[in-house]
Amino acid sequence: MIRVAIIGASGYTGAESIRIVFRHQEAELTYLTALPEECGPAEEVFPQFRGRCDLPIEPLDLNKLSESADVALCCLPHKVSMGFVPKLLDAGVKVIDFSADYRLKDVDVYEKFYQKHTDTANLAKAAYGLPELFRDEIKSTDLVANPGCFPTGAMLAIAPLLKEGLIEPDSIIVSSVTGSSGAGKNPSNVFHFPNMNENLFPYGIGVHRHMPEMEQIAGAVAGTNVQVLFQPHVGPFDRGILSSVYGRPKAGAKDEQFDELYREFYKNEPFVQICKGSPALKDVAGTNYAHVYPRLIKGHVAAFSAIDNLVKGASGQAIQNMNVLFGVDEMMGLK
Amino acid sequence: MIRVAIIGASGYTGAESIRIVFRHQEAELTYLTALPEECGPAEEVFPQFRGRCDLPIEPLDLNKLSESADVALCCLPHKVSMGFVPKLLDAGVKVIDFSADYRLKDVDVYEKFYQKHTDTANLAKAAYGLPELFRDEIKSTDLVANPGCFPTGAMLAIAPLLKEGLIEPDSIIVSSVTGSSGAGKNPSNVFHFPNMNENLFPYGIGVHRHMPEMEQIAGAVAGTNVQVLFQPHVGPFDRGILSSVYGRPKAGAKDEQFDELYREFYKNEPFVQICKGSPALKDVAGTNYAHVYPRLIKGHVAAFSAIDNLVKGASGQAIQNMNVLFGVDEMMGLK
Amino acid sequence: MIRVAIIGASGYTGAESIRIVFRHQEAELTYLTALPEECGPAEEVFPQFRGRCDLPIEPLDLNKLSESADVALCCLPHKVSMGFVPKLLDAGVKVIDFSADYRLKDVDVYEKFYQKHTDTANLAKAAYGLPELFRDEIKSTDLVANPGCFPTGAMLAIAPLLKEGLIEPDSIIVSSVTGSSGAGKNPSNVFHFPNMNENLFPYGIGVHRHMPEMEQIAGAVAGTNVQVLFQPHVGPFDRGILSSVYGRPKAGAKDEQFDELYREFYKNEPFVQICKGSPALKDVAGTNYAHVYPRLIKGHVAAFSAIDNLVKGASGQAIQNMNVLFGVDEMMGLK
Amino acid sequence: MIRVAIIGASGYTGAESIRIVFRHQEAELTYLTALPEECGPAEEVFPQFRGRCDLPIEPLDLNKLSESADVALCCLPHKVSMGFVPKLLDAGVKVIDFSADYRLKDVDVYEKFYQKHTDTANLAKAAYGLPELFRDEIKSTDLVANPGCFPTGAMLAIAPLLKEGLIEPDSIIVSSVTGSSGAGKNPSNVFHFPNMNENLFPYGIGVHRHMPEMEQIAGAVAGTNVQVLFQPHVGPFDRGILSSVYGRPKAGAKDEQFDELYREFYKNEPFVQICKGSPALKDVAGTNYAHVYPRLIKGHVAAFSAIDNLVKGASGQAIQNMNVLFGVDEMMGLK
Repeated sequence: MIRVAIIGASGYTGAESIRIVFRHQEAELTYLTALPEECGPAEEVFPQFRGRCDLPIEPLDLNKLSESADVALCCLPHKVSMGFVPKLLDAGVKVIDFSADYRLKDVDVYEKFYQKHTDTANLAKAAYGLPELFRDEIKSTDLVANPGCFPTGAMLAIAPLLKEGLIEPDSIIVSSVTGSSGAGKNPSNVFHFPNMNENLFPYGIGVHRHMPEMEQIAGAVAGTNVQVLFQPHVGPFDRGILSSVYGRPKAGAKDEQFDELYREFYKNEPFVQICKGSPALKDVAGTNYAHVYPRLIKGHVAAFSAIDNLVKGASGQAIQNMNVLFGVDEMMGLK
Repeated sequence: MIRVAIIGASGYTGAESIRIVFRHQEAELTYLTALPEECGPAEEVFPQFRGRCDLPIEPLDLNKLSESADVALCCLPHKVSMGFVPKLLDAGVKVIDFSADYRLKDVDVYEKFYQKHTDTANLAKAAYGLPELFRDEIKSTDLVANPGCFPTGAMLAIAPLLKEGLIEPDSIIVSSVTGSSGAGKNPSNVFHFPNMNENLFPYGIGVHRHMPEMEQIAGAVAGTNVQVLFQPHVGPFDRGILSSVYGRPKAGAKDEQFDELYREFYKNEPFVQICKGSPALKDVAGTNYAHVYPRLIKGHVAAFSAIDNLVKGASGQAIQNMNVLFGVDEMMGLK
Repeated sequence: MIRVAIIGASGYTGAESIRIVFRHQEAELTYLTALPEECGPAEEVFPQFRGRCDLPIEPLDLNKLSESADVALCCLPHKVSMGFVPKLLDAGVKVIDFSADYRLKDVDVYEKFYQKHTDTANLAKAAYGLPELFRDEIKSTDLVANPGCFPTGAMLAIAPLLKEGLIEPDSIIVSSVTGSSGAGKNPSNVFHFPNMNENLFPYGIGVHRHMPEMEQIAGAVAGTNVQVLFQPHVGPFDRGILSSVYGRPKAGAKDEQFDELYREFYKNEPFVQICKGSPALKDVAGTNYAHVYPRLIKGHVAAFSAIDNLVKGASGQAIQNMNVLFGVDEMMGLK
Repeated sequence: MIRVAIIGASGYTGAESIRIVFRHQEAELTYLTALPEECGPAEEVFPQFRGRCDLPIEPLDLNKLSESADVALCCLPHKVSMGFVPKLLDAGVKVIDFSADYRLKDVDVYEKFYQKHTDTANLAKAAYGLPELFRDEIKSTDLVANPGCFPTGAMLAIAPLLKEGLIEPDSIIVSSVTGSSGAGKNPSNVFHFPNMNENLFPYGIGVHRHMPEMEQIAGAVAGTNVQVLFQPHVGPFDRGILSSVYGRPKAGAKDEQFDELYREFYKNEPFVQICKGSPALKDVAGTNYAHVYPRLIKGHVAAFSAIDNLVKGASGQAIQNMNVLFGVDEMMGLK
């Protein structure tokens, strides 16, 4: 059994990770931690676990972590996480980190969007945890940077085109709509129900932090510099990201070839399904699946993907990465 | 033209009052006030009024109020309101107060649920602003206590039965579901979109402040002491209160007589409509109408009503009261 | 491994049953059937199963059923089901029937609300599949009548009071709000999104079919005749039933005793959790749990329960019944 | 008083038109018609008008139309409308037609997307009813083709850039999300509440009928051929269209100039508001306003607009057109 600790268990990705480990036949929860003010019996912190989880959520004790766990899912926020990850690794556990702190290989880019990076040594060793594109790197590391939810959806939508050089690398526009769970659990004016309900709007216009992450991944897949305009929107639903990716095709790209190209590219990837028409958020809600549909229309590429932001965009992908790290069936707990 | 000031204009009932006065042919907004930190151009405080309202929201100045307004809609919170209402009255305007501070005639009851009452003199003079039941008192006052949203819906549902003595006065159960706008504009954990969306639950079990208000009104209509068990629930939608009121009929009450009884009771009340079947929240959303449907089933009374909590349950009712106070067509601005 | 067939697999309860069996370690789906016009690969009938289910949905063939399955979950509609159940039993499988056809022991009552009963022999043998109340009967039968979603929620909310004689048997009012998935998959005017969204209303006023089912169960638990007024409402969300049950307490009932009484009554029932405050739909969504909270307030009983109508109210309860029938851990697949 | 008839009054745009005319000080509803099977008292066809509208909805009688109305709002479907519009004009009323039948000046384009056009004579005379761009044409006609909801939002978002030649005419991508009221009132599988709720997806990929309408308008504004890729999506809310329009700027375009350019372009247009940040659907819900926000980011134009699809995208725009036709204040009924 893989013994799983969750660091920062009191948020939405913590709860979702707990839910998935419950169903995993070869993993068990052994240790849940959070800030002192958010501790308590898990079934009181999360009423949905009433009667289902007898672990407490406790303040982090590195000795206890060391004794009780093989892997830590680190669900701490950006900038906070890199203060803890070195200690978790020193405690002898593998780490799957949900924050942005180990995703951007270029320290300058990280520091432009966040702050000074305090753990560049581990940053250099971290693997980017999108198994469909970087499985080999993940297998041979102790530290996985779990991808952002938006980059996961967008990159799965166009990776085959990037790989085959069928899309102009300076033309890519990612226009996404996310549900509100991406906002995390802290109440705010924007996500106050009477404000968010029956509403939809773009945000972070021109400035979103996921832009460089997308460009790094797209560049790695394409083997060349890629420019991405990323525009997120938020809508009145809980879960899911629908990404509509637009771009200019390279000369010679043909609509008819897309379906086969994608099926070939993803033929060994159980969690990526090529649709025959529009992907829809409800079809992937609660699952680790990505539904993808590419088309070439009127001289534009239009490729769509649907994922659950809390599963394939966060906790499910972390468990998938855990399965890769420990050599168990990659679908375990995620079927 | 009736010159209207809104005191505490920065909340949901303030915005809704602004929206309604816009459409009122014989009233005009002249003065909007709020706490200093919530002031600014109305179209910046409320983006929905961009280009539609050139008034600023300013800190309250009683001299300015005195010069600019004939009536103040006082949208301040419970316990805060009674600190301002005497000053508003002294400034020479009529006052329609949205808080609970002037609703409960029995000071002891008020003080049990809220705090010490500091304006009992005006409390004694205030009229309870449910025009369908207390129009005459409203006409002859300078201070109207605008009713709570739950009592409005529940009392309209059973007033004819109370009046006719067809329901046992100790048997009444009001089971209501409200939308989330009733929570006001301040973000909270409960009304955080990912918590409230796709959710529904009872709250305030056994302790709701609207209970004594209902008992006071029901008692006044019935001419006897009435006991009410009031149980509110909140659901994942913006507007509306659906009240399902249950009780034991007095001997001799007949299902067949209810429809005619209600039609007769409300025959001069344009805002109360007797339905031929289930009232539905969406049919009254955005309007000042109450849809009502009473039945006698298997030895129980079951009477239903649907209102918009922000309109008939707050701002619309306030404008209706204003129309009564100033002797203009009661439907003006509310058609 | 328990081999599971689903008869009528193309609806919402069929899909939910498929989803649950996927996770069950000692059960496997072997056969899915539907009306000819609703057949096809499961992953095309249900896009959410794309890549996850390689079974087809086929027209029913009793020989194939006999060879491939140990148990049939029969998800057919009321009145249709009793035409198939005898054949399923004859094919040698145990049957868990989702319809109302085998729930009402009194044929006259069934025939009053539905039509002439054509399989009274099996009706007499069927067990009512609410394991928390009738586990022993379920263990020794081949035919389980899976309960209605409303009776499940309402009866779990008050069974301890009925059993202990703490509630007047002629005073019970069940006021419930269900999500829209209870309507099934066929489009209708009422459930058209622009009509149902932001709406909430009572329905079936005075005439709901679940009333006699509740009275039968309540009477069996109480050991006396029980009268129930059942009033359903529907709200703008997918899943869940919140039941608010009101009644008059017997003399001597005390609020303080309720918590302990419920904990004792349900002490061996993992799926029933006694809350310390309001049960909420979102806490049970997607789970087989019932959250229950009873209070005695102002001379009334007010007992609340929250369940997921598709899980504890349908497919999850069916799997729980299957686990009882086959003697495996009752929580398997449902944790 | 302008006497208003509504032809095809039984659908959503009919109801919305009724709601707006109620508030119009210089217009009155005189005649409501629909197909015979959808006729009846307006307050029964639309429960939200209970007690508010004493007109019946009747089968169309051209003599009665001729006598009772000055203008007909023709809310019939595409392809049906052109069979009626000539008769309405012959009856001596001005016509504002909601369908696509008189929008596309190029008959071949119309016939490619719809069917053979049977009223090309009136087509040639019709004005395209987007007053902000074509007010002069509207003033001098008897037949206004009320624009599609998607073209209205998208064109208002980029008209100033098209006019000034600041966007490459072959680069325009319109990525829009609409609420479900755009689907009309007929129930369907897609808009069945349990399917549409918590869902969002693209549709009509590559084939949407609004594409040529956008290209015609954009071309007229730009004075050159324009190519548009239009991709609609639908989300789980009632009202509103958020359009995110992307394109390549012409050399020399500067982000800093956009705000002033737009303010100048729309300086006399009360219904178009230039935002200082993200437009949001909830800010325009129920109003005739368009909120617009243009930016130049990383070498792309990204211009956003929010409108209410039933108001500025349909019935409100029709009343605005009516006000232009009859020379009354363009904001009347729409403030």
